[in-house]
Amino acid sequence: MTSDPDFDFHHPTPLLIVISGPSGAGKDTVVQRMKERGLPFHFVVTATTRPKRANEVNGKDYFFVSKEKFARMINENELFEYALVYGDYKGPPKAQVREALASGQDVVMRLDVQGAETVQKLVPEALLIFITAENGQELERRLRERKTETPAELALRIATARKELKRVEAFDYVVINSDDQIDQTVDMVKAIIDAEHCRVKPRKVTL
Amino acid sequence: MTSDPDFDFHHPTPLLIVISGPSGAGKDTVVQRMKERGLPFHFVVTATTRPKRANEVNGKDYFFVSKEKFARMINENELFEYALVYGDYKGPPKAQVREALASGQDVVMRLDVQGAETVQKLVPEALLIFITAENGQELERRLRERKTETPAELALRIATARKELKRVEAFDYVVINSDDQIDQTVDMVKAIIDAEHCRVKPRKVTL
Repeated sequence: MTSDPDFDFHHPTPLLIVISGPSGAGKDTVVQRMKERGLPFHFVVTATTRPKRANEVNGKDYFFVSKEKFARMINENELFEYALVYGDYKGPPKAQVREALASGQDVVMRLDVQGAETVQKLVPEALLIFITAENGQELERRLRERKTETPAELALRIATARKELKRVEAFDYVVINSDDQIDQTVDMVKAIIDAEHCRVKPRKVTL
Repeated sequence: MTSDPDFDFHHPTPLLIVISGPSGAGKDTVVQRMKERGLPFHFVVTATTRPKRANEVNGKDYFFVSKEKFARMINENELFEYALVYGDYKGPPKAQVREALASGQDVVMRLDVQGAETVQKLVPEALLIFITAENGQELERRLRERKTETPAELALRIATARKELKRVEAFDYVVINSDDQIDQTVDMVKAIIDAEHCRVKPRKVTL
């Protein structure tokens, strides 16, 4: 039998993985736990024009860039998306993702639901994972339990989460993050990524 | 937030899983190990007109049926496929799969590559997993090492395996079964099944 390179399955295509989900579902905790476990992914670091705080590390917490630099990134179409948050700009840079993928690494981005949909339009091959609670009631319970918001803020949060929950249809996978079962959730995210590496038709990202 | 049944993710759709791959890749061993691990699947038992041997159990090794019964199953279109093997008929019955799926169980069928393609035509929602060696050379090495065949038989086996290897494109996933890494292979098959249960658009089988 000849060694046909088409049938050598040793080199999986690196993936662009978007972890998203409604507010209160725990997507931040999931990504945090993925980092703690030392999973071999490149976690995208957001660029921001906000000044660095004393306890923050450039390139780890954020990439701290000047307003001029950020404007250049916008002009050169080098951001997946960006937002103005309390007077400062933030957004995930494409170059970082491009480099990590080129080196063969899977890339993980944590985004809100709207951001995930934006990335999907730009990069249809991206792998979109929706982290959620068992149902809407449980999601609402978690938001209420935070107790860090005024009733008006909470009502806004709940209304947003309700809308976000309905966007699940745009995603590839949905993982239930049950209360206190964060490791089970991360196991499932890991299983999805492992499985995607076995796809006969891989999601080859071009950026 | 109302409890919208559309957004209750608790009840994954049961899957029809086809484990296949070229001769020599180890698909039989993979399914055997899945059974040994007690994974909660229904493993399809093939119907056959062959007489039961002393050490065999009806309904476990095979369903032993009369030629009349088998003819009726063919006429009623109640077999996924069937073949005449050394004068005896064998084929996997649909009713068994239908019942297991209805009870919420995932169903596992082990089939050769041609059988897998037949099932895919009948049931496009089936999940097709291709078990293979790292490449064609390794597959050939394994077939040679069996040493149970005449050189002519071996040449036939190798030619068939070479053809089968090229059918991978028809499958959903490909899993490399490295020599002596059977548990790793089963872990990967399990990850694929777990991931498929998280798909936003499930593979809902109708039979």
